[in-house]
Amino acid sequence: MAKTLGMKLKPKPISGSIVAPKGFKAAGVFCDIKRLGTGSGSEKGTKRDLALVVSEHPAAVAGLFTTNQVCAAPVKVCVARVQTGYAQAIVVNSGNANACTGKQGLKDALEMVQFTERALRLPPGSALVGSTGRIGLVLPMPNVRAGIMEAAAKLGSTTEHATQAAEAILTSDTRRKEIAVELKLDGRTVRIGGMCKGAGMIQPRMSPTGARPAASALHATMLCFITTDAAIGHRALQAALTGAVCASFNRITVDGDMSTNDTVLVLANGAAGNAPLRAGGHARSRRSRDTEMFQAGLDHVCLELAKMIVRDGEGVSRLVTIRLKGASSFADADAAARAVANSALVKTSWHGGDPNWGRIIDALGYSSARVVEGKVDLGYSAPGSRDVLWSLKQGQPSRATFKQLCAAVAAKEFDLHVNLNLRKGSALMYAADLTEEYVTFNKGDVTDPTSLGG
Amino acid sequence: MAKTLGMKLKPKPISGSIVAPKGFKAAGVFCDIKRLGTGSGSEKGTKRDLALVVSEHPAAVAGLFTTNQVCAAPVKVCVARVQTGYAQAIVVNSGNANACTGKQGLKDALEMVQFTERALRLPPGSALVGSTGRIGLVLPMPNVRAGIMEAAAKLGSTTEHATQAAEAILTSDTRRKEIAVELKLDGRTVRIGGMCKGAGMIQPRMSPTGARPAASALHATMLCFITTDAAIGHRALQAALTGAVCASFNRITVDGDMSTNDTVLVLANGAAGNAPLRAGGHARSRRSRDTEMFQAGLDHVCLELAKMIVRDGEGVSRLVTIRLKGASSFADADAAARAVANSALVKTSWHGGDPNWGRIIDALGYSSARVVEGKVDLGYSAPGSRDVLWSLKQGQPSRATFKQLCAAVAAKEFDLHVNLNLRKGSALMYAADLTEEYVTFNKGDVTDPTSLGG
Repeated sequence: MAKTLGMKLKPKPISGSIVAPKGFKAAGVFCDIKRLGTGSGSEKGTKRDLALVVSEHPAAVAGLFTTNQVCAAPVKVCVARVQTGYAQAIVVNSGNANACTGKQGLKDALEMVQFTERALRLPPGSALVGSTGRIGLVLPMPNVRAGIMEAAAKLGSTTEHATQAAEAILTSDTRRKEIAVELKLDGRTVRIGGMCKGAGMIQPRMSPTGARPAASALHATMLCFITTDAAIGHRALQAALTGAVCASFNRITVDGDMSTNDTVLVLANGAAGNAPLRAGGHARSRRSRDTEMFQAGLDHVCLELAKMIVRDGEGVSRLVTIRLKGASSFADADAAARAVANSALVKTSWHGGDPNWGRIIDALGYSSARVVEGKVDLGYSAPGSRDVLWSLKQGQPSRATFKQLCAAVAAKEFDLHVNLNLRKGSALMYAADLTEEYVTFNKGDVTDPTSLGG
Repeated sequence: MAKTLGMKLKPKPISGSIVAPKGFKAAGVFCDIKRLGTGSGSEKGTKRDLALVVSEHPAAVAGLFTTNQVCAAPVKVCVARVQTGYAQAIVVNSGNANACTGKQGLKDALEMVQFTERALRLPPGSALVGSTGRIGLVLPMPNVRAGIMEAAAKLGSTTEHATQAAEAILTSDTRRKEIAVELKLDGRTVRIGGMCKGAGMIQPRMSPTGARPAASALHATMLCFITTDAAIGHRALQAALTGAVCASFNRITVDGDMSTNDTVLVLANGAAGNAPLRAGGHARSRRSRDTEMFQAGLDHVCLELAKMIVRDGEGVSRLVTIRLKGASSFADADAAARAVANSALVKTSWHGGDPNWGRIIDALGYSSARVVEGKVDLGYSAPGSRDVLWSLKQGQPSRATFKQLCAAVAAKEFDLHVNLNLRKGSALMYAADLTEEYVTFNKGDVTDPTSLGG
């Protein structure tokens, strides 16, 4: 995780997104999925809505998926296919979630992967699929097929290709979300690239099989696709991705709503030629250090992409990092941090720049976590800083003035420090404010169903 | 509960609010609690901010209190005092919650009850206290004392006295919330009156001692004060109130935030002269029927007041009654109904009149309740009607058109029917939409701290 990230392990940022690693191609095209999906509107849209990501060679694959019990057809297809350990292509559409679409939806999701395999002359079972958009509408398959054919013909590995793919997966996002880094493993240059989308219905809590973790699952569609030319086994890749996602996408919330479609997929094609990374390498060995380097790179890619989602959240004007510690357990820390992160009153006070710690301690108090009012410390700092302005110490207002506290929460990004001072449970959450724009956007316009989001 | 309410048990509406029952007096005055509390502003406010409710004779008392672990000083004082079974006066201030105020807050809450007792020449231990307003500010006690003296001098039992008391307890509410009913018990005319407040920080989950129920507590300050001239023992009164609150105030949500101050108190002074109602009367006996009548009256008073809170919730434009059934257990039904009631995306879609059932099934799916996508029925009706327009049957879209569904959710009040079709667990929730006005109101204006709410 990020914690073990020493300065030496800091990956080097590079350009190129998902085609930065060797042996990957991408494309993004417009095939009019949203307009037909809602069955209305006469003017033709232009936003790209279908993306392909393809590895030249079979790649190890790993994935994490929504733990929502109502899960979309493409998620079901991917959960089954990722178990095989290998894949070579990912097809993604925006404008329609293919969720709550019953047997037809599952048939369509399977047709999407099979059609992609034929278009790319890949063996059966080598394609994966992701969808995002409004729930409950059947996909316009003729358009999807035409889109896949066009994308397959346009595949390439320039930055522009990656850019077009990153555009095609967006829904209510206002901008592309891309990143790429470079690191040295085993003397070779290894690259990791990623793109993601997500702005509303965002509180992912993903697991490798979509099954709920032992602790009850809490609450975007958010989609993230990562490519790397590292040589790494499926199991090691899955372990690395699980670690990276648990410390990034699974720690963000925009509106507290977990989607039916949340998906993170990574393809590792080995083109960098490093000695393959395996699960469970010995400590202090070169391989262990390489594994740690790779983990640091993947952590960085996931965390930066996750924060981009919060910053570009629907109507969002502030990113607040909640650093909660001193809880009775990790589960308590998680519950307390999520209660604060999802409180309507806390979020609106952040929007107003109001340092209303009363609302924060109220949310802590009604969370399922154990809280003792007389022990709680609350404070603010600049992002990542240890220079904390305390507003509450041991449950009592500190000497900080209202003006000082207002200044601390006036920043577009700040950290909220909470210490329950009970035991050692800690948790981080990356949270957003709640604005009038969020409401205006999500109430939609029923006279224009094409305006209606997920 | 309301379910057993036959037509014969329907209580008769009357005027007069909390002074409708015999032997009660009230007053509401302005003593400038909020302005001094926030330490700013030079212009003098005028809104009444201190209320007294007094019974001429000692009364049986019962109460329910917030299960928030961070609970305000007045709640702590009431929890202890209600155990004695008797009380005679209630003093309530708005403009300051006296929450998170440490030892000083507890001292101030105790001084409020003791000062009230002296002002009214009542024996020690006979007064109760409620507070609502911003958290974390120490009460301006000189003003509170002056307010109590003034209110004590102005006590009376006209409708105007009740009106002034009902005004004095309001914070962000836009209107008074009052009710009174009349019923026949044992040949005597018995009356129940009530007033309440609450518009934001509303998802009460109260218990008689403030301790969390066995099932983990979920999430206004809402305050409610009820008077009755029925003769009823403390234990029977507590049982009746617990039943009434569990089916009313504990089933509402405006913003999902449970307050530190939620309080419901009832005083029963016996002035009607009926044969005293006791806990556990035999079935079919006159007393059992009288107990049922009284319960129906109290249920009606609590439910109507609870719905007034949702309708007058901050920025609220719609009241949606969620009727969830077919869950695996009551706990599941409750969790599923609350997930829908508190989903930002569902609430904004209600605001827009968008019948976006995808967001509803998404929320059901991420709730902790067991949900099987292929079994879920979803539909809409007019309030209380069984004529349901189904949008989803067994997880599949019905034949209802988008236009028909839009018409169903265009009403200011409608019922949302959800059947999980698993077992017999059922739950009701009275929920509100989420509007731009809610956000605008709650982000406040930090340049004018007197504008900042709870």
